[in-house]
Amino acid sequence: MKAMERTLIGEASQHIGAVVKLRGWVHIRRDHGKLIFIELRDRSGKLQLVVLPDKPAATLVAKEVRSEFLVEVTGLVKERPVKAGQEGVAPAVEIEVDKLIIVGRPEGELPIDVSALDLDLNLETLLNYRTVALRNDKVRAIFEIYSELLAAYDEVMRAGGFVEIKTPKILEAATEGGANFFKIKYFDRDAFLAQSPQFYKQAGMSVFERVFEIGTVFRAEPHFTTRHVNEYTGLDAELGFIDSVEDVMVELEKTMQHMFRRIGERCSAQLGRYEAVVPEAVAIPRIRLSEALQILKKEYNKEVENEDIDGEGERMICEYIKKTSGSDLVFLTHYPAHLRPFYSMPSVDDPKYTETFDLLFRGLEIASGGQRIHSVSQLTASIEKKGLRLDDFKHYIDIFRFGVPPHGGWGLGSERIVQKILNLGSIKEAVLYPRDVKRLAP
Amino acid sequence: MKAMERTLIGEASQHIGAVVKLRGWVHIRRDHGKLIFIELRDRSGKLQLVVLPDKPAATLVAKEVRSEFLVEVTGLVKERPVKAGQEGVAPAVEIEVDKLIIVGRPEGELPIDVSALDLDLNLETLLNYRTVALRNDKVRAIFEIYSELLAAYDEVMRAGGFVEIKTPKILEAATEGGANFFKIKYFDRDAFLAQSPQFYKQAGMSVFERVFEIGTVFRAEPHFTTRHVNEYTGLDAELGFIDSVEDVMVELEKTMQHMFRRIGERCSAQLGRYEAVVPEAVAIPRIRLSEALQILKKEYNKEVENEDIDGEGERMICEYIKKTSGSDLVFLTHYPAHLRPFYSMPSVDDPKYTETFDLLFRGLEIASGGQRIHSVSQLTASIEKKGLRLDDFKHYIDIFRFGVPPHGGWGLGSERIVQKILNLGSIKEAVLYPRDVKRLAP
Repeated sequence: MKAMERTLIGEASQHIGAVVKLRGWVHIRRDHGKLIFIELRDRSGKLQLVVLPDKPAATLVAKEVRSEFLVEVTGLVKERPVKAGQEGVAPAVEIEVDKLIIVGRPEGELPIDVSALDLDLNLETLLNYRTVALRNDKVRAIFEIYSELLAAYDEVMRAGGFVEIKTPKILEAATEGGANFFKIKYFDRDAFLAQSPQFYKQAGMSVFERVFEIGTVFRAEPHFTTRHVNEYTGLDAELGFIDSVEDVMVELEKTMQHMFRRIGERCSAQLGRYEAVVPEAVAIPRIRLSEALQILKKEYNKEVENEDIDGEGERMICEYIKKTSGSDLVFLTHYPAHLRPFYSMPSVDDPKYTETFDLLFRGLEIASGGQRIHSVSQLTASIEKKGLRLDDFKHYIDIFRFGVPPHGGWGLGSERIVQKILNLGSIKEAVLYPRDVKRLAP
Repeated sequence: MKAMERTLIGEASQHIGAVVKLRGWVHIRRDHGKLIFIELRDRSGKLQLVVLPDKPAATLVAKEVRSEFLVEVTGLVKERPVKAGQEGVAPAVEIEVDKLIIVGRPEGELPIDVSALDLDLNLETLLNYRTVALRNDKVRAIFEIYSELLAAYDEVMRAGGFVEIKTPKILEAATEGGANFFKIKYFDRDAFLAQSPQFYKQAGMSVFERVFEIGTVFRAEPHFTTRHVNEYTGLDAELGFIDSVEDVMVELEKTMQHMFRRIGERCSAQLGRYEAVVPEAVAIPRIRLSEALQILKKEYNKEVENEDIDGEGERMICEYIKKTSGSDLVFLTHYPAHLRPFYSMPSVDDPKYTETFDLLFRGLEIASGGQRIHSVSQLTASIEKKGLRLDDFKHYIDIFRFGVPPHGGWGLGSERIVQKILNLGSIKEAVLYPRDVKRLAP
């Protein structure tokens, strides 16, 4: 029996027969006659503490603790009897408590029973009590998966030779022709919050060829839906020297498959809490938007306006694709020019359409992308055709004066991916502290 | 001789004897009689193309290209004679051009000769022509190192069990007691841009124990210095169940050493362009601020006001530490309470001081951190003592009601690290598209 430094619960089974020191939260306390059992929780897992009656000091402290008390415990790591069916897995251990100290205690009762398997709160309550609710295993699991998603994106981008950039979020002008910009007071003048890193990613094409950014995106859209928030984390990429938009889709397909695979491998416990599975790595079908609209008409008797697909149509087409090809994802391609920003590359065979795509995942658009215009003359013509002012795009047009290769890229919504992996009712559940039209706190 | 798919310059030496297709920028063209040599550049490196006179079509195109033209070339990969002293390294290759196509061309002359070893521009010109200047190898190197720095931070954090979080940048109130917030118009009300993820990181302490964030930080400071920008990328971390602030410094020390090591290993070419070396992994000295001020007085005859060290003092103390201990970094500890935010943990032995630190690197403060207050009563007392309104901190105080472990963390400025590694004159050189009081473009 040797004295040990502090360890984590997840590593306790490596120290059977030794005395260890652990710190964590009391998950549940259970009294059995003179024995007290405490389930202790830290970031690495849960573990049972046993307080024997021959330890009067520890017993006194143990009688005082309740759920969510913070404690430090010193004790002997003992192997627990192996349960049937659990043979071969890491040995289950418990701690025979020698010393117990209270490190912190909640003020009164928690507003939520965070030890419940499922919190079953309405969205507003869940978000109002966000910090407390996060102590619940099922809620916390969302953000453990989210952290893994960010790592996976970073990993696949770097493996593909992409350079990570950080671009400014405060802009001089509300470009991109959109109205959905937040205005800010910037010293003695007005400025705007970036609603995408589009222009700066494209500027990177003349230098790095391949860039990616993980960054905040601000959208002043007055939406009240299950799929919109006003601030989110965009996973952006742009790649140069492409032959066509197909190169962009191939890269995004590879990216999605890598992210799903890594989450599937590393987050099985978290996925299990939602009975969720990540999509299989099957080829993602590509269909033209116009063809998708015909399918909607034929299969679902649904007509759309303005050649544009709506949320319901996106759900239907995903259902159809899943049924016919087995894929949870689908690329809709060749959006009409009137639905796309001025920098979208027109199709050569019919400039009414563009070399663009949306990527849908289980009924929801999660990414938008395409090939971009890379010549100054084509770009200025496109800006004027959209009725925008050339003066507003001076710095942007300058990017292309000295030769930028054919390129394209995407903007991918990180939270929507997690929302659809776990089948969450609202994207707000997948954002740590979401912002919407009404919510700026906590 | 077999036909090949497109390859990168950096991989050409793996295809000796094969025909490959390459795309890139013309770095320089040189004519030698009837022979034309083109140095081609892509994201992976540079390579020589040789256009022989017996290829009249390719020669015609080659005569047209100038620096920064975009071309696609098809040709045979041939080994070049090994230079003395280069034996054993990857074989040098060149391309005997079969076919040359112009993919894109600059409009007129570039405003800068980007092929120069050193651009030698003043800062304003460099930033006005930022996108063009980035084509220069030495300028681009800054951001290749920066990308590696971000990867290294992510890597060391995850290895330490930290969960990556993304916290909101739009806040309801200008908290933290600072005046340096940008105000934004948020639908029908006012809001503010976050000047740190402090409160949300601390909220994470009740859940994840260890969190990190790589995110945009907005500071409405009207500074005109070589070390301030109004928007930067913060490398934040917070860790729970600490024994003291020393645990935080140990973790930050490990983090810095990992980042320096990875940059040293992977960016030797980029560092070489600046004749720069990353710091050696020696132990970082910790000295109390009061002791540092005594050293300034004794060694440099420098007096400070308000018990606060200034920029000059930071440079002097780094010089002194380097001389006496060999370290490029130093922790200054125990800042007086009047210089630190209300959430700083007071020292037990003398509450005039705090359990906080700044980390200086080659004369510049790159990080600020410390242990935080984690009890509600101590926190409310501290807020009132600073003359702040409790009402403004309701959500923040709520975090601590249900038990948060002793914790601390840091905010680290990513761009300042690169600035000091490369000894750049201004932090603005280390920001892709910097924002200052006067600059919002490009």
